[in-house]
Amino acid sequence: MVLNDQQIAGMDKAQRTALMNSITGYKPLNLLGTISANGRPNVCIVSSVFHMGSNPALLGMIMRPPRPNNDSLCNIRDTRSYTLNNVTADHYREAHQTSASYPSGVSEFEQCGLEEYYHEDHKAPFVASSFIKIGLEVAQIIDIELNGTTLVIGKVVHVIINDNVVGEDGSIDHVIANSLAGSGLDGYFQPRLLDRLTYAKPDKPVKSLIGEDDH
Amino acid sequence: MVLNDQQIAGMDKAQRTALMNSITGYKPLNLLGTISANGRPNVCIVSSVFHMGSNPALLGMIMRPPRPNNDSLCNIRDTRSYTLNNVTADHYREAHQTSASYPSGVSEFEQCGLEEYYHEDHKAPFVASSFIKIGLEVAQIIDIELNGTTLVIGKVVHVIINDNVVGEDGSIDHVIANSLAGSGLDGYFQPRLLDRLTYAKPDKPVKSLIGEDDH
Repeated sequence: MVLNDQQIAGMDKAQRTALMNSITGYKPLNLLGTISANGRPNVCIVSSVFHMGSNPALLGMIMRPPRPNNDSLCNIRDTRSYTLNNVTADHYREAHQTSASYPSGVSEFEQCGLEEYYHEDHKAPFVASSFIKIGLEVAQIIDIELNGTTLVIGKVVHVIINDNVVGEDGSIDHVIANSLAGSGLDGYFQPRLLDRLTYAKPDKPVKSLIGEDDH
Repeated sequence: MVLNDQQIAGMDKAQRTALMNSITGYKPLNLLGTISANGRPNVCIVSSVFHMGSNPALLGMIMRPPRPNNDSLCNIRDTRSYTLNNVTADHYREAHQTSASYPSGVSEFEQCGLEEYYHEDHKAPFVASSFIKIGLEVAQIIDIELNGTTLVIGKVVHVIINDNVVGEDGSIDHVIANSLAGSGLDGYFQPRLLDRLTYAKPDKPVKSLIGEDDH
């Protein structure tokens, strides 16, 4: 199948949305925790979080154009505080349910059966059952005029994580953390490790870091 | 383990880099194809591609601060054309090898054993062995002053894809497309489908779209 931009623009809306939401590959899944200026918590599933830098530790996130009942971005603009929490195989249904359009001010924590967790010095709520809890403060908000989305860049100010999910090299083992990957708008996937490879250099072939390198 | 921003800033650099590159969860893996103004092709693996919109179809990508021998962003600025191609279980070693720092002007296609594929009307090269080939034109380039990275926003102008990887609803089946997910800087993962869930509504619980919903 070969499609050009005019054919894409002419597609059925649901088909185009499904295609474009799945075309980039597997997506990281996180629960975005926020709180309003007057203390009402909010949580919703997001699949658009990405690494932007390690020092300072910055994560990016794309927010959809403002809609009714969509409190997360308002809360982030008001409080400058938010959290990202990994979606696990134990609570992916509750996580998916947070994407429903609840009335403004209603807590999806309560409605969807997810427990809040508060940490001293961090305003926004974490998700208690997530093994990876990241507390962020807004570093920069960029409005994307092309299509009305918003890029929120956050500085990581808290990491709350089970010791057993962090490897010797500092990296997180998402299999132990029970993290899921997403695809499209409704697919939940459990990855298994295929390989870890050595740092690539021009003058030698990469090798496997796990087990025997016999393939 | 609980870390605050000062403790993160004080971490060993390699540990912090490993932690921050893995903390967001599983990442989509793509091969970025570009070509210089004078016709030299370039390909490198990227894990920072994300959905920004379906109509117009826009994808975002974060590029690291400019380094020596790093031609991709220069090529994109010069030609306004690039491609994204899924990383598969069949060529993940070759894909990883493209992250080595080859001298400027050397083609990683040739050095790493990946074959170019050219499509009429699209300047930048695709990766022949990828089942999902996306051709993009620059829509906007935003320099992020916070840390010297660059956000490249591309409009999808070509999709070249095997028919069998597209489902009835228009979404891509990444298991059939043989796509891998990444974690950190060196981990390659093969996801398996855990579940697909119904569109979430406030007044009813989500259900599974696959098999019997008995859990």
